[in-house]
Amino acid sequence: MPQLIQVINPNTSLAMTHTIGEAARSVAAPGTTILATCPTQGVESIEGHYDEAIAAIGVLEQIKRGKEQGAQGHVIACFGDPGLLAGRELASGPVVGIAEAAMHMATLVATRFSIVTTLPRTVIIARHLLQQYGFEHHCAALHAIDLPVLALEDGTGLAQMKVRERCLQAKREDGSGAIVLGCGGMANLARELTQELGIPVIDGVTAAVKMVESLVALGLGTSKHGDLAYPNKKPLSGGFEMLS
Amino acid sequence: MPQLIQVINPNTSLAMTHTIGEAARSVAAPGTTILATCPTQGVESIEGHYDEAIAAIGVLEQIKRGKEQGAQGHVIACFGDPGLLAGRELASGPVVGIAEAAMHMATLVATRFSIVTTLPRTVIIARHLLQQYGFEHHCAALHAIDLPVLALEDGTGLAQMKVRERCLQAKREDGSGAIVLGCGGMANLARELTQELGIPVIDGVTAAVKMVESLVALGLGTSKHGDLAYPNKKPLSGGFEMLS
Amino acid sequence: MPQLIQVINPNTSLAMTHTIGEAARSVAAPGTTILATCPTQGVESIEGHYDEAIAAIGVLEQIKRGKEQGAQGHVIACFGDPGLLAGRELASGPVVGIAEAAMHMATLVATRFSIVTTLPRTVIIARHLLQQYGFEHHCAALHAIDLPVLALEDGTGLAQMKVRERCLQAKREDGSGAIVLGCGGMANLARELTQELGIPVIDGVTAAVKMVESLVALGLGTSKHGDLAYPNKKPLSGGFEMLS
Amino acid sequence: MPQLIQVINPNTSLAMTHTIGEAARSVAAPGTTILATCPTQGVESIEGHYDEAIAAIGVLEQIKRGKEQGAQGHVIACFGDPGLLAGRELASGPVVGIAEAAMHMATLVATRFSIVTTLPRTVIIARHLLQQYGFEHHCAALHAIDLPVLALEDGTGLAQMKVRERCLQAKREDGSGAIVLGCGGMANLARELTQELGIPVIDGVTAAVKMVESLVALGLGTSKHGDLAYPNKKPLSGGFEMLS
Amino acid sequence: MPQLIQVINPNTSLAMTHTIGEAARSVAAPGTTILATCPTQGVESIEGHYDEAIAAIGVLEQIKRGKEQGAQGHVIACFGDPGLLAGRELASGPVVGIAEAAMHMATLVATRFSIVTTLPRTVIIARHLLQQYGFEHHCAALHAIDLPVLALEDGTGLAQMKVRERCLQAKREDGSGAIVLGCGGMANLARELTQELGIPVIDGVTAAVKMVESLVALGLGTSKHGDLAYPNKKPLSGGFEMLS
Amino acid sequence: MPQLIQVINPNTSLAMTHTIGEAARSVAAPGTTILATCPTQGVESIEGHYDEAIAAIGVLEQIKRGKEQGAQGHVIACFGDPGLLAGRELASGPVVGIAEAAMHMATLVATRFSIVTTLPRTVIIARHLLQQYGFEHHCAALHAIDLPVLALEDGTGLAQMKVRERCLQAKREDGSGAIVLGCGGMANLARELTQELGIPVIDGVTAAVKMVESLVALGLGTSKHGDLAYPNKKPLSGGFEMLS
Repeated sequence: MPQLIQVINPNTSLAMTHTIGEAARSVAAPGTTILATCPTQGVESIEGHYDEAIAAIGVLEQIKRGKEQGAQGHVIACFGDPGLLAGRELASGPVVGIAEAAMHMATLVATRFSIVTTLPRTVIIARHLLQQYGFEHHCAALHAIDLPVLALEDGTGLAQMKVRERCLQAKREDGSGAIVLGCGGMANLARELTQELGIPVIDGVTAAVKMVESLVALGLGTSKHGDLAYPNKKPLSGGFEMLS
Repeated sequence: MPQLIQVINPNTSLAMTHTIGEAARSVAAPGTTILATCPTQGVESIEGHYDEAIAAIGVLEQIKRGKEQGAQGHVIACFGDPGLLAGRELASGPVVGIAEAAMHMATLVATRFSIVTTLPRTVIIARHLLQQYGFEHHCAALHAIDLPVLALEDGTGLAQMKVRERCLQAKREDGSGAIVLGCGGMANLARELTQELGIPVIDGVTAAVKMVESLVALGLGTSKHGDLAYPNKKPLSGGFEMLS
Repeated sequence: MPQLIQVINPNTSLAMTHTIGEAARSVAAPGTTILATCPTQGVESIEGHYDEAIAAIGVLEQIKRGKEQGAQGHVIACFGDPGLLAGRELASGPVVGIAEAAMHMATLVATRFSIVTTLPRTVIIARHLLQQYGFEHHCAALHAIDLPVLALEDGTGLAQMKVRERCLQAKREDGSGAIVLGCGGMANLARELTQELGIPVIDGVTAAVKMVESLVALGLGTSKHGDLAYPNKKPLSGGFEMLS
Repeated sequence: MPQLIQVINPNTSLAMTHTIGEAARSVAAPGTTILATCPTQGVESIEGHYDEAIAAIGVLEQIKRGKEQGAQGHVIACFGDPGLLAGRELASGPVVGIAEAAMHMATLVATRFSIVTTLPRTVIIARHLLQQYGFEHHCAALHAIDLPVLALEDGTGLAQMKVRERCLQAKREDGSGAIVLGCGGMANLARELTQELGIPVIDGVTAAVKMVESLVALGLGTSKHGDLAYPNKKPLSGGFEMLS
Repeated sequence: MPQLIQVINPNTSLAMTHTIGEAARSVAAPGTTILATCPTQGVESIEGHYDEAIAAIGVLEQIKRGKEQGAQGHVIACFGDPGLLAGRELASGPVVGIAEAAMHMATLVATRFSIVTTLPRTVIIARHLLQQYGFEHHCAALHAIDLPVLALEDGTGLAQMKVRERCLQAKREDGSGAIVLGCGGMANLARELTQELGIPVIDGVTAAVKMVESLVALGLGTSKHGDLAYPNKKPLSGGFEMLS
Repeated sequence: MPQLIQVINPNTSLAMTHTIGEAARSVAAPGTTILATCPTQGVESIEGHYDEAIAAIGVLEQIKRGKEQGAQGHVIACFGDPGLLAGRELASGPVVGIAEAAMHMATLVATRFSIVTTLPRTVIIARHLLQQYGFEHHCAALHAIDLPVLALEDGTGLAQMKVRERCLQAKREDGSGAIVLGCGGMANLARELTQELGIPVIDGVTAAVKMVESLVALGLGTSKHGDLAYPNKKPLSGGFEMLS
């Protein structure tokens, strides 16, 4: 059955939205159409809790639009999974974050995995997600390349080189069987690194697309019974009117 | 030393902002001035993850304003502690949520506590906070009175009666030594219920005010070393320009 | 790309192998061929650790055969996931158990889920898996219908009726947003119960098929680096020669 | 409202009692009187479980005396929090240990903290407290300067220098945003180190004084309902008669 | 090889010391001599943290005496295991508490166990021990008969009857395979209840005697390397001189 | 009372069965007869999950035989404790694995322990057992000598030398008070290393023999109530007929 899956880049970078959209399309099933979007307002990159709080609104705005356009499922393509539970309240189809998708898949192919992310300050976000999702015992180590997110889009390849180096080091030192890439902007590196390193290197964007496709195919949407029910109707004032 | 402490009601209800401000003032030290505020835009009450995502923006907006007005510390007066870590990135002084304040204090006066909240769908938020803060073993049970937040402000007293009943039941059945009230709108009930029930019934608003006062008095602000450092400077587009 | 996915019923019941195979085929992608198999020797149903130990050998035997037949991935279709890590050592493609698949998916559509299984003595197995996979905080309750596994294949419909009743009860009482069916023999009940109950009722067989399809599509097999590497070569004596 | 807060140094060192009392007074609110005491019998310093068991009796003796003198709250000023739950049974006002106070406050200003203590053998005590209080995920590392407690009072400044070095190292290497000082005898170092290191360096004595002040101001004493009720009346024989 | 094992009743009740000594002797190996002792000063029964703090001193006093008399190992025969780690610092042979012994053994014969104790206020002590020892997932439920410890020695049999009833109820309702008796004074009930209920009913006194015998036979004493090393030498003042 | 205890080497190596049997006899009580056995079919050494799955069948076969020969208790002498819960279903007496026995005993003599095992790929097995048994907080570090199991039987002494080196290193670096030897083939090293290192070095074979002796002496067998009840009767086909 044909599916329409929305892949939301929660930041406003069109370049990164393009990278993410291409990665999503590269693994989508024949019948799946990918709707790659990003918010009309927000921040250009997401590198902390503050950025995430802002990005969450963009995610909600986009899920609302995606639903109007008929999307049957939604991917939140930022490794902090901003707005995940809020988005699930809004959606009827499944909503999957790329951090959770990558982490889930990593536990299926290795007993323990390592994470390679961008700035050191984002490590705590991944750490909290590991705890929330239940995977803290499955993660051996977290690494940061110490470059901002947008370095992945600057065309120099420096960030990509640093990601590769960190992955090699993680394979050598952590005793991990797999590596999770900790940024949506690394989506296009996974397949090549998997080949080169000879271990599963997992990108969340592609992982989440397959997860959402699977849930839709199984007829499983977000539960509307209990705490993920649609938000209670109430007036939204100011700049939030767009959400109502 | 005189202190200026900002108490942020993350919803837009002026009635609730008033209740919260009064509760805060009732316990503030002689030298402390309470600045009770609420966002100019957002939702009237917070009853789920979606509402929280919206409220978090209001919290950030208010922390920014509070800093401009010289506030040395900030209280987030909604039991889900929306925007807590994002707010800490923005602030230099301490930022304390009322859920965490109440939970921390409860562990100091009892080996286990119960929580009484409003709608059942908010229970999961408290549950996640217990896990994040490390208190899941200290909480014996969570209860909901099954009335919306604003019922606490409708003047009928029905919600207050239900809170009281649930507290009595919790004392009787949970084997808890203390009760945490799970909504900023219950701030004015704590002292009376403590008397009536003969056990500590803890409200987070007053607890958080004393916590922030304490941190300021000790010269302890939010750590700006590491993952709570100020947000990386970047353009904020659309309705978020107000935050820059 | 066409895929060949092996779905292994770890017990020797041909009727259950049929049920499981049909369920698998009902959700397989157009290009996917399902190879539904069961061991040539072992037990007719799996209702405890002893049965699982025996079934694990059958799983290994079948994975070996499946690889010879070109299977790119493998599903272990018994809710205890017998032989899961052993099977991963043997396989090069992904190996997914139906308990883990169902539990993973449940966490994506609800904040907490309930499990409905067959005999009470199998509850401890699910409990241990929740702990091993990291999902103990996501499971609200475990229930048993107190009928043996093969009652699901006796044609009377009694077991199916009991499953339905327990699901209704779980929805009403557990505060869960989703239900996980705790036996491969319940695979054909999920879609109907999802409709009737209005919440996601998740079967592991279909969930695991989509998980394996996804991993294969992403080019992710079991990590052969570290503790899931192929078993060290050594002589297998007695009845185990079949495995070498 | 004026408060009388008892700060109990559980060892018999008058020098350390003085240090602790001065630290307490330096942060006490204008209306608060600090009653700094130590047991009449026991050990000169507390560096293990054995010392703690002895010190616990002194703590009980002092809480009893403090109550007779009208103290409304009590601080246990040894980083192992000896006699904490026993003391809570005896007291009606709040009883707060300096380890718990410092740990609680650290979680409010940083996502993770480090601990710097005296002898290596005391590390296990801090580790157990982290687990008991729920903060093991909030602590990044524990360090010992490998000098006995009384070296902090020997006037050479060597211990103080080592504390400073370890704090600098912890800031550099642990990825922590704050440091907790793991000994009552370090109480006078916190404010200076906070300035020098540019991160919150937290002393438990001052933290606990503010915590107790806060609880008293909120009208919250130790719960007398349930397992912290007053000890069941029974004869105390031998040297323990002083406690009755 | 002949062994001398000291069984310390941490309270001062001679009747209970007798009960405990008899239970210990009933399972001791032919070559083992049981030295049943109790402190010369302290409390008659232990029913809370306060009583435990006092009892811990008696335990230390007795371990010191036991060593002087040549005891090769020590049992702390109160279900709260008072003074356990302090006692280990003092001892060279093994020191085993009856709560830990019973809990350890219970995990070897059942997947989950229940605990039946005396007063409700002692439940929290068992709960904390479960967490400290790592057995919280192995315990299904905790029950209290709501009678004081000494009721077990009053000759009426009422307490014994209530223990029996609670055990039956626990077997029926908790889904536990074994029961742990939560008081040294119940030592003589285990064997009979094991027969009557048809499941392992475990008493800690007898369990600990066998544990200590085993450790001694294996040549394993308390580690004197690291945090259980002998207490640092320091003056003991007042009533504690007896300990030096 | 005389006891017959079966010590099962789950691999087929007669040399290792001899080593294990000798170790068992060296600590058995005067009245205890040790029945050292190994499966008639299986693998020569156990170095991963695959080997363990095969060995589990041999364990079941041997427990069945042991029961027929009157064994009152059973030891599973491989550090992965293969077939432990399955074996408990089959047995009426106690069944104890050597990993669990060593870990339990280590927690009684030290606050934290280290593990020294053979191949790196077996580390994950020990890690999972720590989690399952509840001891992950008691284990400071896991080490592998990076030699296969059978190197312990090759007569060169190389493996033994490496074990000794790793133990020394663990004592120096891990802050552990005790060491657990992670392979049945190291059983004969424990006593000597305990002497040389001056800390408890614990072998599981001897530990488990004493544990089983203790349980039998206490009249405690495996609970047959609930999930360790005898396996439900059902036909065993193929090579498994030997088990019926």
